[in-house]
Amino acid sequence: MSVFTPVTPEALSLWLQRYAVGRLAHLQGISAGVQNSNFFVTTTLGRYVLTLFESIPRAELPFYLHLMAHLARCGLPVPAPIADRDNEYLGTLADKPAVLVARLSGASDLSPDSARCARVGAMLAGLHLAGLSYRRHQDNPRGAAWRSATAAQLRPYLTAAEQTLLDEELAFQAGVAVDALPRGVIHADLFRDNVLWDGEHIGGVIDFYFAGVDALLFDVAVTVNDWCSNADGSLDAVRCAALLDAYHAERPFTSAESVAWPAMLRAAALRFWLSRAADFHLPREGEMVLVKNPDEYRDILRLRRSAVPALPAPSTV
Amino acid sequence: MSVFTPVTPEALSLWLQRYAVGRLAHLQGISAGVQNSNFFVTTTLGRYVLTLFESIPRAELPFYLHLMAHLARCGLPVPAPIADRDNEYLGTLADKPAVLVARLSGASDLSPDSARCARVGAMLAGLHLAGLSYRRHQDNPRGAAWRSATAAQLRPYLTAAEQTLLDEELAFQAGVAVDALPRGVIHADLFRDNVLWDGEHIGGVIDFYFAGVDALLFDVAVTVNDWCSNADGSLDAVRCAALLDAYHAERPFTSAESVAWPAMLRAAALRFWLSRAADFHLPREGEMVLVKNPDEYRDILRLRRSAVPALPAPSTV
Repeated sequence: MSVFTPVTPEALSLWLQRYAVGRLAHLQGISAGVQNSNFFVTTTLGRYVLTLFESIPRAELPFYLHLMAHLARCGLPVPAPIADRDNEYLGTLADKPAVLVARLSGASDLSPDSARCARVGAMLAGLHLAGLSYRRHQDNPRGAAWRSATAAQLRPYLTAAEQTLLDEELAFQAGVAVDALPRGVIHADLFRDNVLWDGEHIGGVIDFYFAGVDALLFDVAVTVNDWCSNADGSLDAVRCAALLDAYHAERPFTSAESVAWPAMLRAAALRFWLSRAADFHLPREGEMVLVKNPDEYRDILRLRRSAVPALPAPSTV
Repeated sequence: MSVFTPVTPEALSLWLQRYAVGRLAHLQGISAGVQNSNFFVTTTLGRYVLTLFESIPRAELPFYLHLMAHLARCGLPVPAPIADRDNEYLGTLADKPAVLVARLSGASDLSPDSARCARVGAMLAGLHLAGLSYRRHQDNPRGAAWRSATAAQLRPYLTAAEQTLLDEELAFQAGVAVDALPRGVIHADLFRDNVLWDGEHIGGVIDFYFAGVDALLFDVAVTVNDWCSNADGSLDAVRCAALLDAYHAERPFTSAESVAWPAMLRAAALRFWLSRAADFHLPREGEMVLVKNPDEYRDILRLRRSAVPALPAPSTV
């Protein structure tokens, strides 16, 4: 969405007095992001990003902010929220919930090679391992319950073929045994535009505002569907193997995960088909969302119903 | 001191399993630092510094580590300690207390111009303001009590002229009214080699292991004595004004601080004369300290007994 709520240098200068980050030197809006207004903020002491929350309820924000703080404490390159002089992360600016976070370096890569896919696989495993020591809880806001509700709303807007695909997939997913899968905090939206590359290293993993607790393998599937798909939606076996092997080296997959893998790839594809189709057919009033093509993930879902590359074999040791 | 305690890649790889930072890719000793063993540690997920504590008692370490974590949370570029999967900062490696911290970018500058002196002044004020919300307490370990005790031990090793200088200065400092000065957490050792420059920005402020609670102005004096002295020990008026004005813009000096300023410059010079002379004349057994020339700070002390540049005037608003 880019910038919805304007912020003047004068208002920001005043607001920054709540912090110990020095005085405002430069302010610039960022034309990215789909649910918040974001700004680059440079002060006399450092470089930060200011986020104003346009749609996430204030009460839900502490889960995300403390998660980012926790993962940063664990040594991972995520945007750590900055505490004000009262030790609070969450403030109010221009009548919106507002937070200042560390600005990370790097740029996203929309055509990652297999070496970068491997680095992302390792990073995702690191996020999952670090998330195990995070104490707050929130269910994945785009989990099974949201899926059913959204599908019901959306069904009338779909073609007959799409309705059949949706019905069949919902019925299939209802039968998938997910209870045996390792669970934890998942990023849930680790697309290529949410990873910043600083040379060949990951300088930043951003946009944690879809995070929640769910099967870790679902997060792997979301990531693989984006990072390892060819232009036609089919999976690239080399990039897939690179990402999965690197993940497996940090957190070995279990036997239950090997079994569930094909279904998880489908569940992850379904989730983004549904959200994109909902943004397209059911736009929420007053919200300027960058509408992405829903057909891309409908087609990925169709393709994932055929054979997919297997997970690395669980160690038998 | 550089590296005292060797660490093998094998031992470190095992130890790193306690963290979520990925697997060891590269390990390299650092030949800097005077009381710890330090190593650059690169993993599959990031770049860190490993510190083994050679002389600071384990019980005193939480004050420093949580201080660094607090200042990083406040958005300042300090080496944030990394939490292990049990959410603990402090571990044990090679039978020494050990911590992994974020690796910051940049290099120190031993000939800073006035623009950099201004940036350091602003940063020091930021550290002081952020420190006000830090809840743990430790007195400055090199404060007035340490000064008296060290002077008594050292006196027999000094020349007659040095003894006179020392006696006069101790008598003078005993009469300085410090109770009216704003207090807080001070870095206490913000020398040029403890600031890393990343272009014209400060990428890191390091080495917090002399920090404690004392008069904030004492910290300003320590910093000015190092950053703004000419080769002969005299103060450079331009760099002094740059540093002090920039500090003042973030945290305005009080009237009591203006009055105490000349005495604080002397107290700060005395502190480093004493510690360097003690390292020289009273080396602790088994400790390999890089001995710095004590005469430099004896001469700075002598020079500060004459006129010094004044602080910026407190605002009368």
